[in-house]
Amino acid sequence: MKMLTKLTLLFAIFSFDYTATTLASDPDPVQDFCIPNPRFGPIRTPHLTILPCKNSSDVTTDDFVFSGVRTAGNFTETGLAAKPVNPATFPGLNTLGMSFVRADIKVGGINPPHFHPRATEIAYVVQGSVYSGFVDSGNRVFAKTIEQGEVMVFPRGLVHFQMNVGDKPATIFGSFNSQNPGTQKIPSALFGSEIKEDLLEKAFGLSPRQIGVMKRRFVPKSAR
Amino acid sequence: MKMLTKLTLLFAIFSFDYTATTLASDPDPVQDFCIPNPRFGPIRTPHLTILPCKNSSDVTTDDFVFSGVRTAGNFTETGLAAKPVNPATFPGLNTLGMSFVRADIKVGGINPPHFHPRATEIAYVVQGSVYSGFVDSGNRVFAKTIEQGEVMVFPRGLVHFQMNVGDKPATIFGSFNSQNPGTQKIPSALFGSEIKEDLLEKAFGLSPRQIGVMKRRFVPKSAR
Amino acid sequence: MKMLTKLTLLFAIFSFDYTATTLASDPDPVQDFCIPNPRFGPIRTPHLTILPCKNSSDVTTDDFVFSGVRTAGNFTETGLAAKPVNPATFPGLNTLGMSFVRADIKVGGINPPHFHPRATEIAYVVQGSVYSGFVDSGNRVFAKTIEQGEVMVFPRGLVHFQMNVGDKPATIFGSFNSQNPGTQKIPSALFGSEIKEDLLEKAFGLSPRQIGVMKRRFVPKSAR
Amino acid sequence: MKMLTKLTLLFAIFSFDYTATTLASDPDPVQDFCIPNPRFGPIRTPHLTILPCKNSSDVTTDDFVFSGVRTAGNFTETGLAAKPVNPATFPGLNTLGMSFVRADIKVGGINPPHFHPRATEIAYVVQGSVYSGFVDSGNRVFAKTIEQGEVMVFPRGLVHFQMNVGDKPATIFGSFNSQNPGTQKIPSALFGSEIKEDLLEKAFGLSPRQIGVMKRRFVPKSAR
Amino acid sequence: MKMLTKLTLLFAIFSFDYTATTLASDPDPVQDFCIPNPRFGPIRTPHLTILPCKNSSDVTTDDFVFSGVRTAGNFTETGLAAKPVNPATFPGLNTLGMSFVRADIKVGGINPPHFHPRATEIAYVVQGSVYSGFVDSGNRVFAKTIEQGEVMVFPRGLVHFQMNVGDKPATIFGSFNSQNPGTQKIPSALFGSEIKEDLLEKAFGLSPRQIGVMKRRFVPKSAR
Amino acid sequence: MKMLTKLTLLFAIFSFDYTATTLASDPDPVQDFCIPNPRFGPIRTPHLTILPCKNSSDVTTDDFVFSGVRTAGNFTETGLAAKPVNPATFPGLNTLGMSFVRADIKVGGINPPHFHPRATEIAYVVQGSVYSGFVDSGNRVFAKTIEQGEVMVFPRGLVHFQMNVGDKPATIFGSFNSQNPGTQKIPSALFGSEIKEDLLEKAFGLSPRQIGVMKRRFVPKSAR
Repeated sequence: MKMLTKLTLLFAIFSFDYTATTLASDPDPVQDFCIPNPRFGPIRTPHLTILPCKNSSDVTTDDFVFSGVRTAGNFTETGLAAKPVNPATFPGLNTLGMSFVRADIKVGGINPPHFHPRATEIAYVVQGSVYSGFVDSGNRVFAKTIEQGEVMVFPRGLVHFQMNVGDKPATIFGSFNSQNPGTQKIPSALFGSEIKEDLLEKAFGLSPRQIGVMKRRFVPKSAR
Repeated sequence: MKMLTKLTLLFAIFSFDYTATTLASDPDPVQDFCIPNPRFGPIRTPHLTILPCKNSSDVTTDDFVFSGVRTAGNFTETGLAAKPVNPATFPGLNTLGMSFVRADIKVGGINPPHFHPRATEIAYVVQGSVYSGFVDSGNRVFAKTIEQGEVMVFPRGLVHFQMNVGDKPATIFGSFNSQNPGTQKIPSALFGSEIKEDLLEKAFGLSPRQIGVMKRRFVPKSAR
Repeated sequence: MKMLTKLTLLFAIFSFDYTATTLASDPDPVQDFCIPNPRFGPIRTPHLTILPCKNSSDVTTDDFVFSGVRTAGNFTETGLAAKPVNPATFPGLNTLGMSFVRADIKVGGINPPHFHPRATEIAYVVQGSVYSGFVDSGNRVFAKTIEQGEVMVFPRGLVHFQMNVGDKPATIFGSFNSQNPGTQKIPSALFGSEIKEDLLEKAFGLSPRQIGVMKRRFVPKSAR
Repeated sequence: MKMLTKLTLLFAIFSFDYTATTLASDPDPVQDFCIPNPRFGPIRTPHLTILPCKNSSDVTTDDFVFSGVRTAGNFTETGLAAKPVNPATFPGLNTLGMSFVRADIKVGGINPPHFHPRATEIAYVVQGSVYSGFVDSGNRVFAKTIEQGEVMVFPRGLVHFQMNVGDKPATIFGSFNSQNPGTQKIPSALFGSEIKEDLLEKAFGLSPRQIGVMKRRFVPKSAR
Repeated sequence: MKMLTKLTLLFAIFSFDYTATTLASDPDPVQDFCIPNPRFGPIRTPHLTILPCKNSSDVTTDDFVFSGVRTAGNFTETGLAAKPVNPATFPGLNTLGMSFVRADIKVGGINPPHFHPRATEIAYVVQGSVYSGFVDSGNRVFAKTIEQGEVMVFPRGLVHFQMNVGDKPATIFGSFNSQNPGTQKIPSALFGSEIKEDLLEKAFGLSPRQIGVMKRRFVPKSAR
Repeated sequence: MKMLTKLTLLFAIFSFDYTATTLASDPDPVQDFCIPNPRFGPIRTPHLTILPCKNSSDVTTDDFVFSGVRTAGNFTETGLAAKPVNPATFPGLNTLGMSFVRADIKVGGINPPHFHPRATEIAYVVQGSVYSGFVDSGNRVFAKTIEQGEVMVFPRGLVHFQMNVGDKPATIFGSFNSQNPGTQKIPSALFGSEIKEDLLEKAFGLSPRQIGVMKRRFVPKSAR
């Protein structure tokens, strides 16, 4: 019987890892922590998954330390390299209600207008001069250039953006009050998705040709 | 090994479907959505269950659209046809913190005093004239007849009721701020359950014979 | 200027005390505690009110200690003496997400079917033999007699009841996970309120005469 | 003394009304309800305000009933008439964690891409044929035409949109699980606000001239 | 097929029991209750685990009643016998947001300074005279001796302590607004753990020899 | 009338500023933001206070930007300079559920064992080598030296500590998922407060003389 159990345990955890289990939430934890079992390789589900906790005796200090933001990530066409860190990459965050991101921006580069549906962001400028701002629900912009060592807060769910207006690379450390804040990038959400074109024409007052140009720009590079 | 995993995955999902897993909750979601895997037939557990999410690539628009309230449900003896819609019938609601109900009431019919332990209700009158009200915790009644296009709000957890006082059928669309608000119908909760009879006699000041009459009226029709 | 401020302070607090201020809630506190200012007399608003905190230096140990449940309260006709304790009577509970009640029941007395819209209850029997139970949303009763030193839990929002089935007085200490759980007593909520009589007739299958008898029994003794 | 108190009460409430008080939140309420005092005229603060509750004895049934969505509102240039209803217009919703909206769309009209930072939306089609959809955080669109009596759910914080694709006016009743979901309309948030133009050029790959055209289209009609 | 399912169900539940599953949380429940399946023996995972619910038809009244605190537990060297009760020992508490503890203290014994990271505590003195107190985040102590029938509240997350200053054994019934409040006992957390000794020396201003004495006192008796 | 209102507004805000109003909480906000009115000088109440929001039109970008952590604070005897930033110093954080801290530690200096009752902490090492760790509720320590650019997470409510083990000053940027996480420093909470000495003797196994030495070390330097 004991034998059987051990075997099955292995089975069930496997199934968890690959089925994007989960009803996750960001409430108060009811335990000290819950490190998802990492033995089964990196977690690459499309949505964040909450997994069975490791046995407490298997948890080590390294589960709570993350070294992956010591260097910048890969840069996009707009000059942004963002490394979002959540339980999928840093399992120790699981159930703790926080996550973070390192963002590097090339000189003149931008972090396009986007928002996080599930978190406020505290953005700390590690280096550089960054024009930063957000739009409130009355369409008012709050923006200015902030310098190394300064902090700007982006309220939960509001569209915000950044541009490196200095003469050297900029680095920002952003932290969130959700383990999975989510990100919706406006340009690609609208023009890189399959929204009906006539709706977009009417929404932005653009001609079919203009919409076509926009859609080609933001079309996903590779088929899903 | 890979083979084995696939197999097990199937197993584990099965077991989820039929064991009423879950510690569900209505907090902020930590993902965009989580559609329970529907391949395994309608979910008919006695308590609402939260299931493993479908793979994102298997999610379709139809997961977020519900057509089942285009028509009324079956009427009870009091002239009420209620179709509560929660993740058990509309999986797309899972983790989103809301659910809804279509209620039709025959002329002169009633929705007996009941309450939802876990949600406020916004009741929108689609058609008809409905005497609607609730009782606060000081035993004060707030009730009046509301007409097509009007809205009444029933605060979370308070006893409320409705009666069709018009001359044609009434339809109400109610929405809730919980994915599973729960419903406790007072008459059957008290007289259709197995509470000690002398406690009920003392609570309502009724004779044993009167209590007996009440219990026969609300006795469950079929054995569980 | 300073003078003016002091004066105004007095004013504003007064207005708070008498207008049933507030948007209270039971979330995580963002401070150690917040003792409402007690200098202005007992707080007797119809709904619980959240008041300005005392200055920290005015807070004393006595703000966190409550002696009022050392003795039983006054008994009702059903043989129940309930002393609910919340921030209105024990200001130290304010913002801490908990409250409690002492309930004494005479031999043969009952605590009639009721529910707390906003809390789970942990009921600890200090002395006596108490038939205790609740009804779930499927109308199933979970009830039995519990003895001194035993604990029963009543899930949030579900109808529950108690009866002293022993041969000496019973005392129960109940605690709640809300600073103001609320109480809705079924018999008086239905028959002691002003719900339309024909709705009650249809809901319970009683004759107009029977409903009349019930309503007279639960009519509020004194005008509001 | 009593005299003084009454006077001050008036003062303090006034100040509340006009200073956009408040730290509001959508947690569990700790009271049955809290109707802001309406004697002081309509509440027109730029942000939603939570006000002192009315005395319980002054609360009436009408505080919980809303008739303002029996008719459509005023139409915008895109053919949308939206009547959002929250505690500012329907005080009874205060602290109850829900609000709603009536949206009418002319034939061919649209509800432009927008999102609600603080709520999920349940959209019930009262009449008409409405192409409806949302974009998830992976830029995938979930959209289709839904008909009278059907319901679509828009997960919290995700961009969504609607277009009347039928041949008669459409009416939608939307409900939210926040008393103030907020709305951010993408086109005007980006082009009708004061975001630096070169950031917008880089974000959308548009020329300065094109951005200029867009900004003129969405410029606020009247000065604030 | 049916056969297969049943079998697998068994498997998956096993795996749950022994892998410390879980993303638990203390938010509003979305069901009446969820009793973890008890057939598989006592739950002895190092961290609290949330398990699949029993089928509703298998739930009995005994799932909601706990008799284990009728007697005191085993006493420690400081004269304390604490019996914390949470879903690991009383499965019926699962998802209900509350738990409790019985603490007995010998004459002159103490409950050393400790705190509960995730809950407020309501401490009711069942018998005895107990010096009780807590320290706020400004290092101010609120402490006094409380007697039988009195209640003290310890705000969430603050260090508190108790000492039996009477001449007979003391018994306390404490309740918490979390199903797993957690406990961190200061002396053993600091001196019974493996914190670097020079950090402790600097923190407390003690010599290496003194720290050594402390560490020997609080060293765990048996290897883990 | 208008005149009167303006005047009163001034009054009421004054009273707010000085009475430590508040029922604060860290739930979802129900508005974009709420900047406490800053015209009335720095907010120096002993407990964090939530104040009336500024009129939206008075809010500026500077309300969301904080420059006060560009430089280190004043160092304590243990070599720590901590600058906690919450709504009392950075009003823009109000209601947004986050706050942060800059901590500088001299070579060989320590941040003594402490915990935050109301938040998880994400600690990002801006420069230096920092031995960092926490103790779980089973008295197990998770600690190691982390370097510039690395991140450690301290789960909510658990005791943690830091020591500069490098050969140059260290700087840490910590962020919290509460607008007022609170801090309880163990050495001064226990020995710098007024807990009964014999309780401390029994708790730590120290002699009266040793306790006396400890208490003199942590006695508050200046009278409150």
